[in-house]
Amino acid sequence: MKWNLVISLFLLSFGQLSWGQEGMVIPEYDGKDRVHYLNVKNYKSVMRKYDVMVVYYHEHVGSSKVSQKQFEIEELALEVSGLGVFASLLLTGLEEPDSIYIFIEDEVIEYDGELAADTLVEFIYDVIDDPVEIIDNANELKGFESLEEDMKLVGYFKNVRSEPYVVFKDTAEEFHPHVKFFATFSSKIAKRLNLDMNDVDFYEPFIDSPFSIPGKPYTEEDLVNFIEDNIRPTLRKLKPHNMYEIWEDDVDGEHIIAFAEEDDPDGFEFLEILKEVAEDNSANPNLSIIWIDPDQFPLLVPYWEKTFDIDLSSPQIGVVDVEDADSIWLEMDDHDDMPTPDELEDWLMDVLENEIDPDHDDEDDDDDDDDNDFTVNICIFKI
Amino acid sequence: MKWNLVISLFLLSFGQLSWGQEGMVIPEYDGKDRVHYLNVKNYKSVMRKYDVMVVYYHEHVGSSKVSQKQFEIEELALEVSGLGVFASLLLTGLEEPDSIYIFIEDEVIEYDGELAADTLVEFIYDVIDDPVEIIDNANELKGFESLEEDMKLVGYFKNVRSEPYVVFKDTAEEFHPHVKFFATFSSKIAKRLNLDMNDVDFYEPFIDSPFSIPGKPYTEEDLVNFIEDNIRPTLRKLKPHNMYEIWEDDVDGEHIIAFAEEDDPDGFEFLEILKEVAEDNSANPNLSIIWIDPDQFPLLVPYWEKTFDIDLSSPQIGVVDVEDADSIWLEMDDHDDMPTPDELEDWLMDVLENEIDPDHDDEDDDDDDDDNDFTVNICIFKI
Repeated sequence: MKWNLVISLFLLSFGQLSWGQEGMVIPEYDGKDRVHYLNVKNYKSVMRKYDVMVVYYHEHVGSSKVSQKQFEIEELALEVSGLGVFASLLLTGLEEPDSIYIFIEDEVIEYDGELAADTLVEFIYDVIDDPVEIIDNANELKGFESLEEDMKLVGYFKNVRSEPYVVFKDTAEEFHPHVKFFATFSSKIAKRLNLDMNDVDFYEPFIDSPFSIPGKPYTEEDLVNFIEDNIRPTLRKLKPHNMYEIWEDDVDGEHIIAFAEEDDPDGFEFLEILKEVAEDNSANPNLSIIWIDPDQFPLLVPYWEKTFDIDLSSPQIGVVDVEDADSIWLEMDDHDDMPTPDELEDWLMDVLENEIDPDHDDEDDDDDDDDNDFTVNICIFKI
Repeated sequence: MKWNLVISLFLLSFGQLSWGQEGMVIPEYDGKDRVHYLNVKNYKSVMRKYDVMVVYYHEHVGSSKVSQKQFEIEELALEVSGLGVFASLLLTGLEEPDSIYIFIEDEVIEYDGELAADTLVEFIYDVIDDPVEIIDNANELKGFESLEEDMKLVGYFKNVRSEPYVVFKDTAEEFHPHVKFFATFSSKIAKRLNLDMNDVDFYEPFIDSPFSIPGKPYTEEDLVNFIEDNIRPTLRKLKPHNMYEIWEDDVDGEHIIAFAEEDDPDGFEFLEILKEVAEDNSANPNLSIIWIDPDQFPLLVPYWEKTFDIDLSSPQIGVVDVEDADSIWLEMDDHDDMPTPDELEDWLMDVLENEIDPDHDDEDDDDDDDDNDFTVNICIFKI
């Protein structure tokens, strides 16, 4: 937790805290400007000052009213989060414009998520967290098991000084915080996880049964290679902090996308079916499904409904061409006509074999192309 | 789903969508101004136009730079959400300044959560959802059971036209979307829920065993009274959409607050203990604990750590005086010294009997009062 203090320096900044009068109020943005533009002259001295630093690397802001306002919003997101905004086209080695990089010790971690203050800061808290979590007892094991949305590894080691643990920890640092690493030093916990000494198991998201990594004792390279070979899971959840990263990781120009609201009975039911299919097909390297819970992206719901011509108040699964956003969706009458796992699997196999392909109707869908211009009805109020 | 279209009118508004070139991009704010100030002359005609409307009711904005900027941020949150901002001191019946009200059909629902675009829009989606969800099959029942964070009711009825169902639905509309209402018309599901015809069961958050509402057949008044008598649960989770509402609902000027990160093994372990204690004490009307997952409020973590002088990287439970924010926290060495459920219960009972009371040391803590001024270290970058 050695980073806490440093981060605090960035974050603590609130206005209107007249404590005695108002009691336990919740702080609001103080309106202070803490934007700092990095350039070739100052960036070394600035970067030397902080243990954790966030750099927002962007292209020259256009002069149109829209791009000015857009930049203003992005800047505000960083200001509300209390983080300095560092912008420069001069930093070498950072190729992608409009990206955010987090500098911590010798690592540079790219942030490819939503540009919102809370999402970014939550991600930074993950970054400064320990890369390996230790499982000490049965309740913590239950916590480990309940964590199904992330890709995770767990190993059983003698103690923190054992060489295999050091290799495991070094690997963890490579993938942290995107992949979760757990370790136990307890033989009782190891037994419940079916781990022998120095074994490491790999869990895909949403899949209960792990895969034992072969070739123990592992080198760091072994572990890194194994993870990289398996980094695109059968089923993964789009989250605000990784949305752009996942969006860009298409399979041959397509995404299989499932929309399901976990808190809704229909959505939950569909997710159960989806997880079953994913579990049965976890060995198929071509199958990769993105699950989106519309609840987590309320501002994008109308956009997705319009673009894909679907109703997100009930679950949907479809295949989307990332170039032109053409898409085909599985017919499901809401409520009573949920597919069985076998039906869903058949449909997915048809997608993989291009029997179902959003490009098939490209020649005769001139009308549909109007969607691509995306004209919308806006409600503007103005006196 | 009849509201979808109306909401879409408000929400669909994005800039920079050059679809063909960029493929499936994620839309960003278009910079358009859709603020509308309601006044005594125009508000009737504006309100007549929309089925769902959001009114932001605020006091005159102060002239200081801070309050101007604060207002700007609040306005921007509503603009990004695509909702019109309506402001007026002239609306009658809406007493609380700086509040947001959602008008839908004949109902006015107060929004007492974080003023962030996505949180507000997610809440509005909940508002336009059906007030009663129907459980049709075993998978949907599993979804119902997995929903533990909300207060919920479930009833078994003959069909949608039966009088007891109509009463249940009318009650649901009163509490929607804050309390979740479920119904089943299936005898098989009813059997698994141990419900006889026209029975209604009430579930506190995080407590598996329900309470059967007595006095069937119920009138709407019976149900409303029962819910109002039980609306403050033994354990409830602070969420962005209800944070101010819960914050203001203190018990005799105090809050018992538990911080625990669900995705962390320690946090998960502590939550298990906390839920066990809540379950054992659900009949105690004086016990009410607020669980805060720091992951959901990353921007507030440094503020809470500073105010309460605690380290939120491990679980914490304490009692807080809402007037002066004095607080007392249960001693827990992180990791290995988690309290047993019995120890935690003893501590909580001491709190309820004022054996543990943050006010006890008020006379000799002049030094601590410095915290109340809340001076902070800010890192300002400026060339």
